[in-house]
Amino acid sequence: MRNKFWEDLGLTGKRAIIVHHDDLGMLQAGNRAYAELGLPTGSVMMPGSWAAECRQGDLGVHLTLTSEWAFPRMRPLTGGASLRDGEGYFWRTLEQAWSQIDEDDAVNELTAQIAAFRAMGIEPTHIDTHMGAVLRPDIATAYVQLAVENRLPCLLIDNPEVRALPQGWADMLRQVIEGSPLPGFRIVDTYGVNPQTRGDWYVDTLSKLGPGVYHLIHHAAVPTSEGQVLPDWEKRAADFHALQRSDVRQVLGEFVGLTYQDVRDGIRQYL
Amino acid sequence: MRNKFWEDLGLTGKRAIIVHHDDLGMLQAGNRAYAELGLPTGSVMMPGSWAAECRQGDLGVHLTLTSEWAFPRMRPLTGGASLRDGEGYFWRTLEQAWSQIDEDDAVNELTAQIAAFRAMGIEPTHIDTHMGAVLRPDIATAYVQLAVENRLPCLLIDNPEVRALPQGWADMLRQVIEGSPLPGFRIVDTYGVNPQTRGDWYVDTLSKLGPGVYHLIHHAAVPTSEGQVLPDWEKRAADFHALQRSDVRQVLGEFVGLTYQDVRDGIRQYL
Repeated sequence: MRNKFWEDLGLTGKRAIIVHHDDLGMLQAGNRAYAELGLPTGSVMMPGSWAAECRQGDLGVHLTLTSEWAFPRMRPLTGGASLRDGEGYFWRTLEQAWSQIDEDDAVNELTAQIAAFRAMGIEPTHIDTHMGAVLRPDIATAYVQLAVENRLPCLLIDNPEVRALPQGWADMLRQVIEGSPLPGFRIVDTYGVNPQTRGDWYVDTLSKLGPGVYHLIHHAAVPTSEGQVLPDWEKRAADFHALQRSDVRQVLGEFVGLTYQDVRDGIRQYL
Repeated sequence: MRNKFWEDLGLTGKRAIIVHHDDLGMLQAGNRAYAELGLPTGSVMMPGSWAAECRQGDLGVHLTLTSEWAFPRMRPLTGGASLRDGEGYFWRTLEQAWSQIDEDDAVNELTAQIAAFRAMGIEPTHIDTHMGAVLRPDIATAYVQLAVENRLPCLLIDNPEVRALPQGWADMLRQVIEGSPLPGFRIVDTYGVNPQTRGDWYVDTLSKLGPGVYHLIHHAAVPTSEGQVLPDWEKRAADFHALQRSDVRQVLGEFVGLTYQDVRDGIRQYL
């Protein structure tokens, strides 16, 4: 079914892209960039204090099990002790999260985050994962199950080798992904790209991509006083500026522009 | 003991003031104002995403049972169902909070907020109350008990008539306050003062105050992109600007400058 799905959407042999705004709901600067860019797709961190602003668009749940910055910091929505550090926030690093979190606590928390999104009175178009924290294989299995149970697409990476993962995980993840009924994406992640040359990188990289269905990850944020508190603010500002450039918009316009709502509504006939 | 306490601190017949920064931890704009003003005393909303930045100063816990703005919004630290609205956040209004919250849920949450502050590795100098939500008489009794149990001063208002309260509450609060071993303050609250003329108001009002121990409430925030999201941002910006004025600093300098650490260390010999 996985490949057939893109065929059903008429995408075989085409270049299709979802431009995906990560980390909404964490910072006002990210929410503001979302509003100013006018690109529809992104996902919301429900433990973030700005989540309540994210009610309109092609929005999903950015499932969160880590809170990496010194501030702002986020606390779990559920009581699981294994989810939290000594100050009651999510763990700061993937290594801590992966070594400490109990699978049951993770599943309860992810379930609660999806429910919290729906409590806003809107249906998510998808789920995805902050920092890839769900990629621990047992949690990844639960993540795919949650997607299927909720009849939502989840971000499944058809090229998991793009991430640095502990030994053996990429193979296990490939099995989880290939065993799922959900379609997979090729990830294009701007995060590591030099902020100084990021706009040109968008143009060069996107114009060279062959046929396929791509999920482009960006973290646009306006470089406000608040936005500049994050040590990586230049990366976020670079995405914000690049995505306003007309040459970047032009190469994006050469793709079939896909939304997760398209994907969700399509897969619901199979789930 | 209540009056004797100020006598012990040598304040009889004097004019003493604590200049108190409310709502720290909720907005970066508030935390930034705290850093820029250099005034030591304030209190931190532990459910706020910026609480983790507030680790140095004469800081207490701004006990929170409401989340009044459309965004940012805050969720309780504990699981009590009566503490939350349909989206899982604290209630938006005092009326909702007062009519819905169970006393046990409130006490658990307030206890957790004090514990969350201590989990940062620092000792609070005091506790106080966001929007006066603890003034429901049963919660007020618990609030005073929590202060005594934790050997902390709490903000007790010697002039509760300054607040609009449901019928009969002012009298009950007076009994709670007079029955407590903790010292009370005369409140000076700038919140309702016209932002356009607030600086002059500070000078006029403060210069006319007679002998007494005053707790001056302000909500200074820098008018950043984030800070200006709150509908009342002009009030917050007005406090920020007024407290930088040299004439305001001068009238403040004519008081004995008190901190909650002074008060806390003083009352611990009695508690």
